[in-house]
Amino acid sequence: MTASSHHRPLAMANVPHWDFTTDVAIVGFGATGACAAIEAAEAGAAVMLFERSSGSGGASALSGGEIYIGGGTDAQLAAGFADTVEDFTAYLKLAGGPCVDTAKCEVYGREALAHYQWLKDQGVPYRGNYLPGKVIEPTDDSTLIWSGSEAASPFRQQARPAPRGHVIRHHGWGGGRPLVDILERRVRDLGVDIHVDARVVALIVDDDRVAGLVVRIDNQHRFVRARRGVVLATGGFVFNQAMRARYCPDSFRINSPIGDRDDGIGIELGQSVGGDAIHMDQFFTTCPWTIPAEQAHGVFVNTVGQRFINEDCYHGRVSRCAIDQPGGKVYLLLDSAHFTQPFELAGISIAGTGETWEEVEAELEMPAGTLSATMAFYNRHAHEGRDPLFDKQQPTLVPLDQAPFVALELNFATSYFSFFTLGGLKTSAAAEVLDRGGTPIPGLFAAGRCTSGLPAWGHGYSSGLSLADCTFFGRKAGHNAAQ
Amino acid sequence: MTASSHHRPLAMANVPHWDFTTDVAIVGFGATGACAAIEAAEAGAAVMLFERSSGSGGASALSGGEIYIGGGTDAQLAAGFADTVEDFTAYLKLAGGPCVDTAKCEVYGREALAHYQWLKDQGVPYRGNYLPGKVIEPTDDSTLIWSGSEAASPFRQQARPAPRGHVIRHHGWGGGRPLVDILERRVRDLGVDIHVDARVVALIVDDDRVAGLVVRIDNQHRFVRARRGVVLATGGFVFNQAMRARYCPDSFRINSPIGDRDDGIGIELGQSVGGDAIHMDQFFTTCPWTIPAEQAHGVFVNTVGQRFINEDCYHGRVSRCAIDQPGGKVYLLLDSAHFTQPFELAGISIAGTGETWEEVEAELEMPAGTLSATMAFYNRHAHEGRDPLFDKQQPTLVPLDQAPFVALELNFATSYFSFFTLGGLKTSAAAEVLDRGGTPIPGLFAAGRCTSGLPAWGHGYSSGLSLADCTFFGRKAGHNAAQ
Repeated sequence: MTASSHHRPLAMANVPHWDFTTDVAIVGFGATGACAAIEAAEAGAAVMLFERSSGSGGASALSGGEIYIGGGTDAQLAAGFADTVEDFTAYLKLAGGPCVDTAKCEVYGREALAHYQWLKDQGVPYRGNYLPGKVIEPTDDSTLIWSGSEAASPFRQQARPAPRGHVIRHHGWGGGRPLVDILERRVRDLGVDIHVDARVVALIVDDDRVAGLVVRIDNQHRFVRARRGVVLATGGFVFNQAMRARYCPDSFRINSPIGDRDDGIGIELGQSVGGDAIHMDQFFTTCPWTIPAEQAHGVFVNTVGQRFINEDCYHGRVSRCAIDQPGGKVYLLLDSAHFTQPFELAGISIAGTGETWEEVEAELEMPAGTLSATMAFYNRHAHEGRDPLFDKQQPTLVPLDQAPFVALELNFATSYFSFFTLGGLKTSAAAEVLDRGGTPIPGLFAAGRCTSGLPAWGHGYSSGLSLADCTFFGRKAGHNAAQ
Repeated sequence: MTASSHHRPLAMANVPHWDFTTDVAIVGFGATGACAAIEAAEAGAAVMLFERSSGSGGASALSGGEIYIGGGTDAQLAAGFADTVEDFTAYLKLAGGPCVDTAKCEVYGREALAHYQWLKDQGVPYRGNYLPGKVIEPTDDSTLIWSGSEAASPFRQQARPAPRGHVIRHHGWGGGRPLVDILERRVRDLGVDIHVDARVVALIVDDDRVAGLVVRIDNQHRFVRARRGVVLATGGFVFNQAMRARYCPDSFRINSPIGDRDDGIGIELGQSVGGDAIHMDQFFTTCPWTIPAEQAHGVFVNTVGQRFINEDCYHGRVSRCAIDQPGGKVYLLLDSAHFTQPFELAGISIAGTGETWEEVEAELEMPAGTLSATMAFYNRHAHEGRDPLFDKQQPTLVPLDQAPFVALELNFATSYFSFFTLGGLKTSAAAEVLDRGGTPIPGLFAAGRCTSGLPAWGHGYSSGLSLADCTFFGRKAGHNAAQ
């Protein structure tokens, strides 16, 4: 097997020469790669970092910079939330659903508070305050927000709710960029040898051990020896149409991928040496329907007028369940007391209006007695403060009975359903890449969205889970690769 | 990489000696392996076949022996169904849903009539008659049955419906066993060297070419050289709990796997040499709720009293959609005009009864105005001969208004939801195993349920699709491996 590629490793015997030699070689300079580099360098290893783009960032820099942390942080305690490791860990497991990696939930559950301190020690600032309400990202520099389905059924019954989204101190959206900038500064201070515009081509193997990388720099192959380990931190495969078609075809219902050239290369590199890729059908999606906040009081129905979810759970969970509905769209129903113009970016349009729900129903060309019956039932119980179908809670649960009424259309094809993939390499809680038999592949580590991690299940995603996974297991990967 | 396993191939240089040398080595003696062996032998190759069990059969022998064939067979034409290659191919593509392999649909669409003749030439008998109605398997020796969702929405609008399930002439259920027996006879007549109780352990590779097998026979490793090719025909992974957990966790909602030790070995062998495994989350399931036939008139609701499907589509499609519903069970609603005792094997129980649908609703502890409203809406339109929600068609569409009423419970955990996996190796329409870059792996072929084939999508399954795939692409695998 002499023709190496990201599908086939290069045997060390066939390496013509070494261009670089290091202890730990890291692929990808998002939050995962940065955290791996910091830990590897702090463990005393010589570290090289290769990034395909011209600078740090990756998908991390496109995020809100929010990290899911619980168990009783300073911000939680100051706001009166006595979160425990047990409740936090229980929620992490629920969020993983049928795809859960219990070991990862447990280790992160135990170590999240220390991880939060570590982030602060790297210079990540947190104001420490709590911002109530249902927000996607704070527009001020607040820290603690409700960022998941903690207070909603069926989660609230199984883990005592607490807000756990911790956002970097930063005014406005897009805290991911300053988060990566701070991590990058640490990486540079630690003397990590950073190569940008460096695209990894293949792994190099020495018998059954991963021993280096082939990297394309300045249009030439460079051979990198990694004496201790290689860390894959390359993100998911949302920009690889062929991989999506093969592994995650349901993602083609929606059209707004988020990422920075996330083409699945790390997953394929891991597979090239026998790594297992799991839960490859899973993806996160959300359409920002809870902006403006008044709209969070809306009721969703599918194209046959049925509700399908308690709308007080995480906006991404609602969105992911929406994508499962037949007919290519769902409707968000609001009355005049709760309607404001939808967030323009969301691509949500007004599909029908009326003085009664019957008129809205007719305008949507739904059979009489579908949507209107759903809303009559909903309103009757909302007046009593309950939702017998899906257990939506107050204060989100309100009657929608102030005419005129409106149906907003969230169209899977044309509305902004942002998404990224969640499936990837199976790794241990120590960030070792595992083969299909569950055995670590010597010398190979991975973290972040090229792995299946804490955010394993699209229907259970909560904001901050991916960055928690990236930063925490990125650290494990770097630390363990340096041993 | 000297320690070979089904996760790691053995390099030819490390083969201590050859116990056997052949042209084509086939792994698995179900319908797929048998068809591969026949074609390989007829192409003039020396053929060895290795089966882990003590005889032929596999999951094929547990099936109904029904093969999905269209385009205008003798049985179709005799019964007045002018099926065309275009409609047949269109239906195959719809059945593949988001996971469809268009090339496979097209080649099978074109060649299915010739395949049918080939089956007859092997000695597979068909009576040639048509059995109307909605049957899972004929209890007499009839040939042609409706075995999918052809006449149901949304399929009927996109491909002109025709029955396409062709069942081997055989009295009663279980035509799979005589089908395999007939194929086995051909295999033996052609002089194929058959080894049973022979468990494959690893592939042998010569540079990038698959060149043989390591097989465990009589508790010893045997090294098999395959000069022309290896065919994997080992079935799916329904009996491999670890693989299900990693790739298909939703299958744990149900508990009645069908297969014969289908442990995914062929998929893992293919992956061990770089083969791509796709759509691994997909599975077929069905609970035999259409037996007795009167019950096919029932209406399904989920635990919040909503319908979710046109119940006139294929029983397996209804069952698969049922598994997607929240709450661990669904209810099949019937009135006294259509109720008969459920098929005992199905594990379907009576969950509620009443003189009105309101009483049934109350007995199921559903909120007032849920199930009863659903049934009032359904009955009102059924009297008009239409189903405005899901487009269920007559004659299945009937009002259910003859008291008393009953709700049967199909419980995901305790009812008989039989299932098998559909994900597997990605193969070309020539049955070559493809790597992740889409390039054939020299010397390696596969077919049947260790591949993702015609029955790619659980929600689109139709009876006979898997055996069509097994027999047709099994033949391709054997023929092409022999070249």
